[in-house]
Amino acid sequence: MTISARRDRLRQRLAAADLDAMLVTDLVNVRYLSGFTGSNAALLVFAERDTPVLATDGRYVTQAAAQAPDAEVVIERAVGPALVARAADGVRRLGFESHVVTVDGFTSLERAGAGVEFVRAAGMVERLREVKDAGEIAILRLACEAADAALHDLVARGCLRPGRTEKEVRRDLESLMLDHGADGVSFETIVATGSNSAIPHHRPTDAVLAAGDFVKIDFGALVAGYHSDMTRTFVLGSAADWQRELYALVATAQAAGRAAVVPGTELSAVDAAAREVIADAGHAEHFGHGLGHGVGLQIHEAPGISASAVGTLLAGAAVTVEPGVYLPGRGGVRIEDTLVVGSEDAPEPELLTRFSKELVVIT
Amino acid sequence: MTISARRDRLRQRLAAADLDAMLVTDLVNVRYLSGFTGSNAALLVFAERDTPVLATDGRYVTQAAAQAPDAEVVIERAVGPALVARAADGVRRLGFESHVVTVDGFTSLERAGAGVEFVRAAGMVERLREVKDAGEIAILRLACEAADAALHDLVARGCLRPGRTEKEVRRDLESLMLDHGADGVSFETIVATGSNSAIPHHRPTDAVLAAGDFVKIDFGALVAGYHSDMTRTFVLGSAADWQRELYALVATAQAAGRAAVVPGTELSAVDAAAREVIADAGHAEHFGHGLGHGVGLQIHEAPGISASAVGTLLAGAAVTVEPGVYLPGRGGVRIEDTLVVGSEDAPEPELLTRFSKELVVIT
Repeated sequence: MTISARRDRLRQRLAAADLDAMLVTDLVNVRYLSGFTGSNAALLVFAERDTPVLATDGRYVTQAAAQAPDAEVVIERAVGPALVARAADGVRRLGFESHVVTVDGFTSLERAGAGVEFVRAAGMVERLREVKDAGEIAILRLACEAADAALHDLVARGCLRPGRTEKEVRRDLESLMLDHGADGVSFETIVATGSNSAIPHHRPTDAVLAAGDFVKIDFGALVAGYHSDMTRTFVLGSAADWQRELYALVATAQAAGRAAVVPGTELSAVDAAAREVIADAGHAEHFGHGLGHGVGLQIHEAPGISASAVGTLLAGAAVTVEPGVYLPGRGGVRIEDTLVVGSEDAPEPELLTRFSKELVVIT
Repeated sequence: MTISARRDRLRQRLAAADLDAMLVTDLVNVRYLSGFTGSNAALLVFAERDTPVLATDGRYVTQAAAQAPDAEVVIERAVGPALVARAADGVRRLGFESHVVTVDGFTSLERAGAGVEFVRAAGMVERLREVKDAGEIAILRLACEAADAALHDLVARGCLRPGRTEKEVRRDLESLMLDHGADGVSFETIVATGSNSAIPHHRPTDAVLAAGDFVKIDFGALVAGYHSDMTRTFVLGSAADWQRELYALVATAQAAGRAAVVPGTELSAVDAAAREVIADAGHAEHFGHGLGHGVGLQIHEAPGISASAVGTLLAGAAVTVEPGVYLPGRGGVRIEDTLVVGSEDAPEPELLTRFSKELVVIT
């Protein structure tokens, strides 16, 4: 699907909402709909006209022409008001991103758009982004492959061993992702050893890996703007019985969650599929976060998969499934994959993060 | 100065603006005024009462108590509305960050605060942050020292030599900053070789360093939330005459800019001090950005130092001075320091980035 096809989908929604145009000011949404990656930009998309107008400032003249060749480009520092002034000639009802535009920013837009009716259109582009096109899925595959390969090397090279610190492991893994083609990391890598593994979003410290520890690693590679996301939990030395049991429980819950990744399923039902396994084992209160989230141009995007989520899984969405059980002071296990939801004809999801989910005991 | 003293300064400004309280929703501002670093928070500061109220969600119960021991803590997911509801009992005029709160966010605040008069207070906390206290300056020193030491090692270890790529140099330098105690990088490191050095904000590529190249490196270390910022430009092999001349010009302009860093000076006059040197040499159009900016909890913060800036340099502000001359297709030089503006009694600025500014020719 080309970028112009993405705009076509938006234009259909504009027409359905009786909007003549939409002012897109979220930079990730601007990128999605135009290809432009500069740090100051806005995009005006018309319901009735294919060519959008991209506004950016003088630093980006060359880049805008190269990245968004099919857009009309306006060079102006105050990008939002510039496009509203442009829209004022002909646009009656103008959608805007009310979840992004600030109160002061909106005042500037209103001043620029005398006669324009501003209509809140929060999340309209984010909902389009939920379903990935073939190009996006291809890039997500590359991002997940880079992460898989880096974790493989981390283990193969003996970087996970007693005596090393969480921070050292983090640096090794991030460096290996770059070696495998990542442009950067998706987010700050989590390396949590021993009792730190019971902290869901632990930041790496100088804590030293020790024999008998759970080592929980949550990380991702950034490739061409797209984020991978994966968690694996290892045991150093021999695994105690409680560790094997905990690991097996989370692995079972995670498999149940993945099995529920079928297009059309209620998001809350996907969450419940994994959560019930954990609750039945008496650990409901040790799984305090949602089951997963969408990934793409942002590390967290629509849909959220949790008990309170509203809506269904859409074919072609890219989502994580990441149950965890955390025993305060002892340790925790999380297992997370990124998957692409299948279609009605082929409902099986595509697993993008392929590193083994068997319990890996590192001796 | 303690964090409570920072709030005292804000409380004086609230009283002066006839505000009963201020709802702080920018996370950097919340951190500055409370010490809390969680990813979901808001802070209510009262004009007439020392104890603020910090709202955050259930993930941060322990962290909030540890980082903000002198705040009253409210646990609620919708942090802004929770504090407005709290304020509604007694607060008549409530300041809010209209440059941060979104249009939809403001609707939620209004719903929670029947009877409250919301008053725009954009930038009020950012203006306080402009003047650093002793603790902040001590941390900025550490951040700049880590960057200095990393650049020293980069050169001493021979990492800058023909045949290496911009990306490789970036990775070495970032890794060395971590070795020297940085928690991370201030921003994506710029390494620009040869004609790429003429691009002010070039992103590192696989371009190979070659003899005769300018190599421009703009980078910073992040320590305890504070950012350092420094640029140095090297020559590989022997420097051509045009390179020596260009370097000398920028070095002279940079020295003139630093000499103008005196409290009370108009920001535009600081910019002009360096810009005139470059303009007199006929290169006005090759210096297309402002002279500098404030640094602290953000890499770019108040004050901006440019031709159009309004206001004066404040004693104790931390600012960069970074003129550059960029010759498209040939190469460019930028030299940047971070300095702390002196006081009226001792107007000499403190230079935090101490790596040599003599032309370093790497042979």
